[in-house]
Amino acid sequence: MSAAVKRRPEASVRIAGGRFMVIGGASLVGSATCEELLRQGAAEIRLFDNFSFGSGEAIAHLKDDPRVNVVQGDILRLHQLLHATEGLDGIVHLAAFMTLSMDRDPWSGIDVNIRGVQNVLEACRASKVRKVVFASSNAVYGYGPGVKGDLVEETPFHSVGAPPAAILYGASKIIGEQLCRDAHRRNGQDYVVLRYSTVYGERQHYRAANALYIVETHDAVKRGERPVVIGDGSETKHFVYVGDLARANRMALESDATDVAVNTSGPEPVTTLELVTLVAELSGRPDLEAEHREPDPGKVRLTSGGAFMIDHKAAEGAIGWKPEVGMREGLKRLLAWRNSQTPVAT
Amino acid sequence: MSAAVKRRPEASVRIAGGRFMVIGGASLVGSATCEELLRQGAAEIRLFDNFSFGSGEAIAHLKDDPRVNVVQGDILRLHQLLHATEGLDGIVHLAAFMTLSMDRDPWSGIDVNIRGVQNVLEACRASKVRKVVFASSNAVYGYGPGVKGDLVEETPFHSVGAPPAAILYGASKIIGEQLCRDAHRRNGQDYVVLRYSTVYGERQHYRAANALYIVETHDAVKRGERPVVIGDGSETKHFVYVGDLARANRMALESDATDVAVNTSGPEPVTTLELVTLVAELSGRPDLEAEHREPDPGKVRLTSGGAFMIDHKAAEGAIGWKPEVGMREGLKRLLAWRNSQTPVAT
Repeated sequence: MSAAVKRRPEASVRIAGGRFMVIGGASLVGSATCEELLRQGAAEIRLFDNFSFGSGEAIAHLKDDPRVNVVQGDILRLHQLLHATEGLDGIVHLAAFMTLSMDRDPWSGIDVNIRGVQNVLEACRASKVRKVVFASSNAVYGYGPGVKGDLVEETPFHSVGAPPAAILYGASKIIGEQLCRDAHRRNGQDYVVLRYSTVYGERQHYRAANALYIVETHDAVKRGERPVVIGDGSETKHFVYVGDLARANRMALESDATDVAVNTSGPEPVTTLELVTLVAELSGRPDLEAEHREPDPGKVRLTSGGAFMIDHKAAEGAIGWKPEVGMREGLKRLLAWRNSQTPVAT
Repeated sequence: MSAAVKRRPEASVRIAGGRFMVIGGASLVGSATCEELLRQGAAEIRLFDNFSFGSGEAIAHLKDDPRVNVVQGDILRLHQLLHATEGLDGIVHLAAFMTLSMDRDPWSGIDVNIRGVQNVLEACRASKVRKVVFASSNAVYGYGPGVKGDLVEETPFHSVGAPPAAILYGASKIIGEQLCRDAHRRNGQDYVVLRYSTVYGERQHYRAANALYIVETHDAVKRGERPVVIGDGSETKHFVYVGDLARANRMALESDATDVAVNTSGPEPVTTLELVTLVAELSGRPDLEAEHREPDPGKVRLTSGGAFMIDHKAAEGAIGWKPEVGMREGLKRLLAWRNSQTPVAT
């Protein structure tokens, strides 16, 4: 960020002894964030989820902690949020439709990603929740050939050549961010927006278009098949390990920074071909080389076509965070978790 | 547009003898569009409006035409749209919250600009309406210092330095456009998106942030006061005359172009200072020089800070349209209309 970060002592929320809610908690990032907050001594974690995407398996390891309260609720029902936010110090808001689900059901996706954020912010205002961490996305820089080079927080939103659902998703995240800014301006709501890059790690699901390569490659080579790459595989992907993001969420709550949006990406980008090759190697089948296929125009498959790098320096300046886990280590952890599961999900 | 325009003979709707609905019809652009379609021989015009922004005065001159049916309805009520769209050949969808109203009530603004478009498209699908013209905006290129140079259809969305309501407005229009694209892809809905620049003309209202300079300057000099310019007045504004837009709406219906978004701007941009000076001159008070004031940070006043030009060449290629009325002529018409009204509205 070129602009100085806004700081307020009141915007810093102490984790130890605090009460927090993770909305969309029964998820990849949600479950890791709950763990992180519990590890740091939180007195209570409310894990709010409607379980439409989230699953009981994702939080099975958390349910026995007496500090965890699972709240089955829907962010489209404001009254449920008004009850659930009472007495909280901070919220991490993760619940969202991503591109693939937006493509299947744009009506619900827009409800959840926009009206849902309005409801969460309204409940935080009514319940005087001190700080909100909102999970945005590098989708706010868009898709297509216009997305290249270093993506910094000032990079505009590109959409030429991108499928409707991807643009709807990115624009819905832009709106979510602005609703946070608007709540800060109107109500003094302290918040930090984290623009996640593609998340991967233990409890990986099949919903993120970009992370599909990881799980699909692993599943393929386990069946003895060659992994599939759409196109030449030269386009960039920039992932972030889920544990690094959980730490970013926690540090955003603790930080005195407010009214700011920063990128949270992994140490460095990879190309799709590098990623698939690495997953095959770590899955014990370095001999199974990637098979290149033409894109199916009927399918939402996001290929940026260019080389880009999501810059995360501003996050260090704002909340003191930087990523610690590289792709090889993070993938090892993901695959170790996956191999401990039975059987392979489809 | 660098890409070839998609054309389908079925996408061309004949105006003479046709049945059309203008949604948000009781407005500046709506009333002019109704006039244009009536002039071209339309058999029926349904003028759909909830009259929250629209007014009876704006359509007083149309009500006696037996071909005009005024339908008081709300685009948030899908059942009303399902009834109102029966038997139509085409729709011009104008109803929207702009930046100032979005700032006052972002909750309703998002409902109208996003869910409203979904409802309109859903009703068109159910009622087999052949073509939709959707009024988008140059707000899809954003605001702030990033907006400069020639704005063409591929220009990305800039938002750094812009107030939340302006970004919400621009992003809501991006989403509206993509919902049209999505309806074309899913249902074969033919449509043309017109990205209006700031509209002015007869029956000018007080709701468009950029056009406020025209009516406020006129009102001020009529009171014998100097017109006020925020900042140095060097930033660009690019207006379009309402009659030119009405013609663009009609030509978009007639054209065989579909699945396309093009700019519709006036012949050339002006600076704010040039505009205010011209309005003072045409109002008979060239002696009243503009008074420069500092921006009020609490007010949504959009200053781009830079020089830009909204390119409308693609509209000529797609639907054969180009603007005909320059600023001086258009302002003369606006002011003649305004001087025929009593008294000055506040």
